[in-house]
Parts: sequence; structure tokens; C-alpha cells
Amino acid sequence: MTPLYPDLIPAARGTKPADMVYRNAEIFDAFSCTWEHNDIAIKSGIIVGLGRSYRGIREQDLHGAYIVPGLIDAHVHIESSLVVPQEYARLVASHGTTTVIADPHEIANVAGAAGIEYMLAGRTGSPVDILYMLPSCVPSTPLDIGGASLDAEALFKFCGREGILGLGEMMNVPGVLAGDREIQRKLALFSVRDGHAPLLSGVDLNAYILAGLESDHECTTRGEAEEKLRRGMYIFIREGSTEKNSAALIPMVTPENVSRCCFATDDCHADLLAREGHIDRCIRTAVALGLEPELAIRMATLSAAERFGLSDRGALAPGRRADLCIVDDPVLFTVKETILSGKPVAAYPSLTAAVSLPATLRCITPSREQIRLYGCGSARVIGLVSGQIITESLHFDLDAARLPDRERDLLKIVVCNRYGRPGIGTGIVHGFGFKKGAIATSVSHDAHNIIATGAGDEEILAAIDAVIRARGGMAAVNGTDITVLPLDCAGLMSTLPASEVIARLDTLREVTGTMGGIAEPFMHLSFLALTVIPALRITDRGLFDGVAFRDVPVFGGEETSS
Amino acid sequence: MTPLYPDLIPAARGTKPADMVYRNAEIFDAFSCTWEHNDIAIKSGIIVGLGRSYRGIREQDLHGAYIVPGLIDAHVHIESSLVVPQEYARLVASHGTTTVIADPHEIANVAGAAGIEYMLAGRTGSPVDILYMLPSCVPSTPLDIGGASLDAEALFKFCGREGILGLGEMMNVPGVLAGDREIQRKLALFSVRDGHAPLLSGVDLNAYILAGLESDHECTTRGEAEEKLRRGMYIFIREGSTEKNSAALIPMVTPENVSRCCFATDDCHADLLAREGHIDRCIRTAVALGLEPELAIRMATLSAAERFGLSDRGALAPGRRADLCIVDDPVLFTVKETILSGKPVAAYPSLTAAVSLPATLRCITPSREQIRLYGCGSARVIGLVSGQIITESLHFDLDAARLPDRERDLLKIVVCNRYGRPGIGTGIVHGFGFKKGAIATSVSHDAHNIIATGAGDEEILAAIDAVIRARGGMAAVNGTDITVLPLDCAGLMSTLPASEVIARLDTLREVTGTMGGIAEPFMHLSFLALTVIPALRITDRGLFDGVAFRDVPVFGGEETSS
Repeated sequence: MTPLYPDLIPAARGTKPADMVYRNAEIFDAFSCTWEHNDIAIKSGIIVGLGRSYRGIREQDLHGAYIVPGLIDAHVHIESSLVVPQEYARLVASHGTTTVIADPHEIANVAGAAGIEYMLAGRTGSPVDILYMLPSCVPSTPLDIGGASLDAEALFKFCGREGILGLGEMMNVPGVLAGDREIQRKLALFSVRDGHAPLLSGVDLNAYILAGLESDHECTTRGEAEEKLRRGMYIFIREGSTEKNSAALIPMVTPENVSRCCFATDDCHADLLAREGHIDRCIRTAVALGLEPELAIRMATLSAAERFGLSDRGALAPGRRADLCIVDDPVLFTVKETILSGKPVAAYPSLTAAVSLPATLRCITPSREQIRLYGCGSARVIGLVSGQIITESLHFDLDAARLPDRERDLLKIVVCNRYGRPGIGTGIVHGFGFKKGAIATSVSHDAHNIIATGAGDEEILAAIDAVIRARGGMAAVNGTDITVLPLDCAGLMSTLPASEVIARLDTLREVTGTMGGIAEPFMHLSFLALTVIPALRITDRGLFDGVAFRDVPVFGGEETSS
Repeated sequence: MTPLYPDLIPAARGTKPADMVYRNAEIFDAFSCTWEHNDIAIKSGIIVGLGRSYRGIREQDLHGAYIVPGLIDAHVHIESSLVVPQEYARLVASHGTTTVIADPHEIANVAGAAGIEYMLAGRTGSPVDILYMLPSCVPSTPLDIGGASLDAEALFKFCGREGILGLGEMMNVPGVLAGDREIQRKLALFSVRDGHAPLLSGVDLNAYILAGLESDHECTTRGEAEEKLRRGMYIFIREGSTEKNSAALIPMVTPENVSRCCFATDDCHADLLAREGHIDRCIRTAVALGLEPELAIRMATLSAAERFGLSDRGALAPGRRADLCIVDDPVLFTVKETILSGKPVAAYPSLTAAVSLPATLRCITPSREQIRLYGCGSARVIGLVSGQIITESLHFDLDAARLPDRERDLLKIVVCNRYGRPGIGTGIVHGFGFKKGAIATSVSHDAHNIIATGAGDEEILAAIDAVIRARGGMAAVNGTDITVLPLDCAGLMSTLPASEVIARLDTLREVTGTMGGIAEPFMHLSFLALTVIPALRITDRGLFDGVAFRDVPVFGGEETSS
């Protein structure tokens, strides 16, 4: 229900002073995508009115600067930033964001309900209103078990909690289409339900939408997005660290359908957020692609608010939250100041000592013997695809005892179960290009076991060891040099300030650069255990055929998909 | 919460047959305001999907006809049609309407909660989904007391009832702005609240919106509507029997703001509905005024559904109600067939014996003495304004004993309290033009006492007597000829079939035509007791100054407003 503010009526009528009046601004009208030169009055964190007659206890002349509603991210995993929620909020708040719709899918796969509680606690005192969609698929699949499993009953316990908005991306498309009972129970818990249906089309898309899924952020082509929009889905155009769909999808946005289109970042590292921005970056990207700035701003504000039933925000109008983003110009869109509930975000307390959720790294570093591969002949090899999360299933004639094969860029890749269950999988990967050294990380979607690769067993084991010692993290080992970004919070996020996390990411990038490898090796590595994406993957059981959806050996066995 | 239909998933996937497939149609995409040539499949009253591969137990080739979602009236008083809800539904259903958002304000002023119950009962078996907004202002003002008073507690008893959607038009603008506690309580009961704020602007408009009112159907100029839209209100563009705002407002509708604009009819007699149509007429009017048909259809469908949070309708998409309106052409917009929940409206049972809510006509016909006027000199006279509900406050030098003054068109006007309270008010009116005869009606907003006027006391009394004998109705007396449309249901609606009501309306029109009067005298008469509208009115206490908001005498007293 929209909140009511009877006590603010006198301020709205101008018979009592406002707390603050911003004067001489170009104020965005999200309802008709136009601008209005006016003053805007705020009291108790609420916009009480627009008009030239307001008086405020404080007043500020904006000299014609542009005010738009605070920006809204329609779908994001905060964990992917590698910083904790409070620190994430500080990063994006400075870029004009005032609301994020976050899905704690990663931490829930590691720590279950305790992970969600941890993320909920991060809302307190945050300079961004963080609203959560409950992760619908923990684990992602029965073959991708991490540290927890959340059934409908576990999710039900969060219903009605402040900060809980609905059900997060439903990735189990086959389960939905099969009418799976447990999925039905989860869908029935919430009236707001996000979809996740890459490439789904035709009658199966109809069935998925009929089942109650109302949005999609996985479209990669205009045709796909247009079909989903026609069938009733809200389209979240995603522009993340590696998942970039703006170029393909922005051309579909029209004045007629803009109310059904939003922006989402899904997964962004802290360094990208700090250097290039957040939803402001999405707007700039869209405008650069030819979209009218007013439509881009509508997407980032009212459209997202409407999609989630948030009638208390998304527009600069009486009775709505005083969430404001002040920019120099609608096209350049450089954020000058962000106001959350009437208060500049800079005035929110900064993170002093972040609370951690210790990682469950219940594992020890494997022995050399445990990661040894035996065999000779035609071997299945995971083929990286640069800038994509899909992989190829390759074949090479090789002798496992002679790995690494630096000539042909064939390296070992290892996954260690981190939840106290036996499980060490070893495979071969092509595409990292490391001539020396190794890397390991405890971020590996979606089970988030430890995953490592490199140009030598010793260094691979040293990198895994460094991750375990850090109680989660990203580690690069180059000879005896060990560089670590500790991810002490569930092995996914760091409790360090964002500036420090960014500095360590830079160092890791430098170190891996000297090892002769590709750009962003950690990001690529973190997706290689994701069994829901084709073609060949590695789990703590060994190689996994993501098309046939079964474990496969490195040597021999039936022919795999490619 | 959006309903879920797990049992329909196989039909959506095409693995089970649909109940019905409409083939070869131009299907309206309300999300992007475009058309799609396709088939549409329906099962159990729900749209399961669009696509060429569906098979149905029944199939129908539409040969390129256009299907739009069932039309939605965003604000209407069914009582104003003069027919009961079931009969009203049959009338509008044949014109493509499948949902009406109705405010039982009139019957609630007569019969209170029992009146609302009566209207709710009219939902059963109706070929239109009738959803009610609870009347917020019963009585309209403390000076306009009819048969009932509904406080927040009385409204609370209807919360959560099927068919109850929110709080109807909040007419008490001064009360809202003064922060009236009882009004606050009413606003707090519902999350959907319709406004009613003619000419409200500036800071007071801001305050009214901040207080929780989200829509307005009273705009008469483009500037007024644009200001309200900018401040966050949904704009219902009204085209009723006498309240016609399309010409002024349609030019404001753009592709960018169409999602915030809807159609409403407010008050329409049955004859207009039968002969000219309902929301289909609004669409044709808008298109004739230059609006793109696709935007007009969007207003009449998805925009209205979104405004009321009805995510189960408003678009032709999987999982939504199979409410369809089949038309020949988007511009001509002649409705060929209406489908409600997958069933043609013609297949819904027609009204056999309508239930009545007997009127509380606890009054007897006054004596000649009781309607006698005394006085001589300058008299206050109500001046009709043709085609408007405002009146003028006129002055004439006259001798009351010599009325009627047919030369100067000065007739007596009488209001009799019908609720068993003493009260007979007599005044003088200019503008009806009757040379002979008299008319009376038990429809007189908002208290709905009996109101009468005419060219002679005997005939005025005979007309009142005819209304009382009919237990409510509209009566025209011409000499000894008495013509009556009985409004036996609360004195507001007739339980006769619509065709019969229309025939009687035609006869009344003929009869009053022979009396030498203006067109639509009953409609004009029914508004002359409405104290909330300037300038001079008549109540069961006598003349009322609607500007000074006080009773005034016919002769003498302080100068009145004009």
C-alpha cells in the first residue's frame, strides 16, 4: 500500500515550511517524459510538491541543473561486486542510484537463509534502498549443490519481511514447464516474480509466462526481447561487467513500450562500478546508441518502479520518496549529487567495520596425487569463448602426464568442494593462455566451490591453498609471489573498503597480465563450474557435459556434445 | 496477486488442446501498441498463448478481424444508466466492454450499505466484470443528507470482499486539505483511491495528491489535465451523457503518457449506451479527434488495468483473462463480438426477473399550500445553463402569487424530502421553457429527494404524486396525461429491461417536447439539488447558495453570490 502522509499536508499546501527547497531546476516528468523548470519542496524525506511558492528551512539554487528521480537497478547480484552490501550501496549511490532490486542468489547458494539474513542486515543505514527478490533456485540444479538448499518452506519464512519484494529469477525453466510442484509452491508465495529464460520462445515461452513469470533480463537479440515483451514480460536490458545487451536491445525501445522496459546490471565488479558507473552508465550507453535521453531516464526510474509495484518512488511528484539524482545534462548524464529520502547520500554514515559472514571453507588443499590426471589419447577439453560464459567442448590428442601443454594452451583446471564433502574434479581447459603461474577463486557459480587453473600443479595447489588460508578469496600465484584479494564474507565478498578491493583487483590484473594470460581470467574462471550453461563444464565430480546434462570422463566414454 | 494456472501449462505448450482457438486475427499488442497477425488460444477462460501451432476443441477463423483486449471503463455510476447492474452489463457488453470500475455512490446515498450490497449482488452471472470503488462521500456534504451516512467503519466492513477494489472519488477536497480525521481513516483503508478535484491546481493539488488520491476524471481543460498528470495522477478522460471532455483532453495524449490515461463515462443513460455505445464510443470519439487508434485502445485496455493493479487483464497475453473485443477495423471500431472469460457475452444468461431494492419513499404528496410561495419584489431565481450542471443566480422582479410567468420563463421548482423527514423546499427556476405541464423525478443528486418543476402547481403536484405512486421514477404530466418511467429500484433504477426503459425515455422525451421545454429536462432537473456545484440550488429546505454555502430565501435577505 502506498504510504499516506497526513502530517505533511500543511507543507504541501505551503502553510508550513518545507525542510528543503531545490530552486531553479529542470525537473524530469517521468509520466510524460518531458522537463519542467520549477522548484521542488521536500519534507521528512518526502516530496511535498513542485511550485515556485514554497519556502524551505533550507533552500538551494540549482541554477538550471537537471533533477531526475533516483535511479533503479531492476536486477542485480550484489555479491558479484565483491564488496559487501553497505559498500556496494556507497559505490552506486554516488552514481545516482537510490534503489536496487537485488537477488542474493550467490550467498544463498553458499550459506542459505543465513546468507539472506546477512544481506538483509546490509539494508540498515544504507545510502541506497536495497530490496531483495528471494533466490528461487538454490541449488540451481540438483547437480549443482553448494552449501544450502532452499525449498518453498524456507522462502516462506521471509514472506512479509521488510525489504523482501518477491521471487527472484526463476532459472529452472524445465521445472516450470513440467509443472514441478515445489516450483509451483514457490511461485505461489509472491505476487512479484522475476523470470530468467534465455532464448525461450514460442509455446514454451507462453507456458513460462502463464506460469507466472513476468520479466526477463536474459534477452540477447532484439527479436527475442520483442517476442517476450509482446507476450507480457517486462524487459530488463542488461549491461553488466561481461553481459552486455544494450547494443542489441536498445533499438527496440519506443515511446509506446518504454513503460515495459528497465535497466539491470546483473553482475558488476566494484572497479567497473567505481570507474564507469552503474545505471547512469546504462543511460549513457543507451543514449550513445541513439535512444532519446528522456526514454532512457524513464526506463531507469518510473518503469522500474511500476514493474515492482513501488508506487512510492520512480517520479518527482507529491507523496513520493525524495529520491533524487541531480545531473549536469540529460545527454552527458554526469551525476552531481544523489539524494536518498531527502538526504544527500554523502551524509549517510560510511562503513567503519563491516560485519562478515565467515565462509564455510571446510576443505584442505589437495595433494598433488589428488589432482593428477591419468590417460593418453583423445581428451575432452573445455574451450573458453572470450567475452562469453558459454564454452566449447573440444578434443585434443594428448598425454595427461605431460600437462601443462603451453604450446597448445592446455592447462589443468581443478574444482575442490568447499562444503566438507569429498570432491575434487580435475579437467583440461584451453584458452587462458597462461605461460606460468596459476589462479584460484572461491567465486564459482553457482555452488561456489574453489576453482583453479594454471601452468603447473604446484602453483595451482598454492593458489588453492591461498584461497583456503584467506577463508575465501581470489589468488594469483606466480612462482613464489602470492597475491590475494580476500573474500572473507562467504568467500564471495570482501569486508575491505571498495577502494581497497579495487586496488587489489588492479594488482591481480597486473600479476595475471605478467603470466601471459587473457584479460579478466577470474571472471572467466568463475563461470566454468556453471552446469546450466553449455557445453563443457567442470565440477567437484570432474567434467560435466552441459548439453547432455551428465558427468563425462576426460578420456574415453561416449561421444560428448560439442 | 496475479492468479496462477499450473493446470493450464500443458495447453500453453500445445501438448493438450485449447478450448478455443481464434485463427487469422490481427491481435493488438497493448505493450507496444502494434498489431500482430496470429492465432490466439483460450482454455478455461484464460489466454494460454498466441501462435500458429495451437489446436482447439473449437476453432474459428476470423478472416483478419481485429482483436483487442476487452474494454475497461475506469469510472462509472451504473445507477445513472437508469437500469439495474445486470441489464447495464448486457448493454455495455455488446459494445466490447468486459470490465467496469463502478462507484455505487448514488444508491449508497439512498440506501447506504444495503445499496452497496445490492450492487455487489449484481455481479453474479454478469457478462461484464463489475468491480466497485466504495463511495467515499456519503453524504456528499453535511448539508446534503440523503438516506444514509457511511463512515470509515461502515466502509471497512466491505474491505477484502470480492468485487471491492478501492475507495471511490473523494469529492470532499476541503476535508482532504484540512486533514479531516474521518477522511484520513477512509483513505487508509484502501491502496487504490480515486480522486475528484475539478479545477484543483498548484499547492492544493500537490496536497491533495500527497494525501493519497491518484486519479482524476474531472479535468475540463488540457492545462488542468497536464498539470495533474505531471503531479502523478492518472487522467480519466470522461465522455458521458452530458459531461463531455474528449475534445478538450484528447490532444494531450502522447505515446509517452498514454500509460497514464484512461477512459471513463461517469454518467450515461441507457439510451445513449444502446444507441451510441460505451467505451467503444470513447475510442471512436478520440480517433475522430485525431488520436492514433492504437493509443486510444491502449487507454481503454492496458492503461486502465494497470491503473487499478489488475494484472490479470488489459492485454492479450498468456495467463490473462480471455476478455476479448473483436472489431471490424481499428478506426471504425464497430464491435462484432465480445468475449468475457472465454465465453461470448451473448451466451451469458439474460435477465429474467430482476431483483429490486424498494425505494424508501417515506413521503406523501404535498398540498398546494405547502408549495405556495409568498412575496413580491426582487426574487432569487435559479438560472439553468444549457448542457452544464452549474447554474446562475438570477434576479427577477415578480409577484409569487402570479407564477408561473410563462412570458419570462419563470417556473416553480419543488424539492420534497423522501426519507420521512419534514422538508419541502420551493423556489423559482428560469430556463426549462415549459409552456404547460410538469415533470418530477426521484433522481436528484446526491440526496435523491423528489424534485419537480412545471407550468402549474396542480401539474407539479400530480407529477410528484406519480413519482411517489411508482415508488420512485420519472414522471411527466401534461393536463390529465401522465407518463411514468418507474424507477422502482431505490428510486434510481428500473427493473424493466433496458429496451423498455429506453422506450419510456423516448416517450418522456416526446411528451416533454410537446410541453415546449428544452431538451433533456430530466437530466438538467436531476442536478438542481446538487449543493456542491455553484451557484444557486434548491434543497428540501429551500434555496441554497452554492458559493456562500448557506440557505437563502427567495425574497430578501443578504445579497447572494451570482
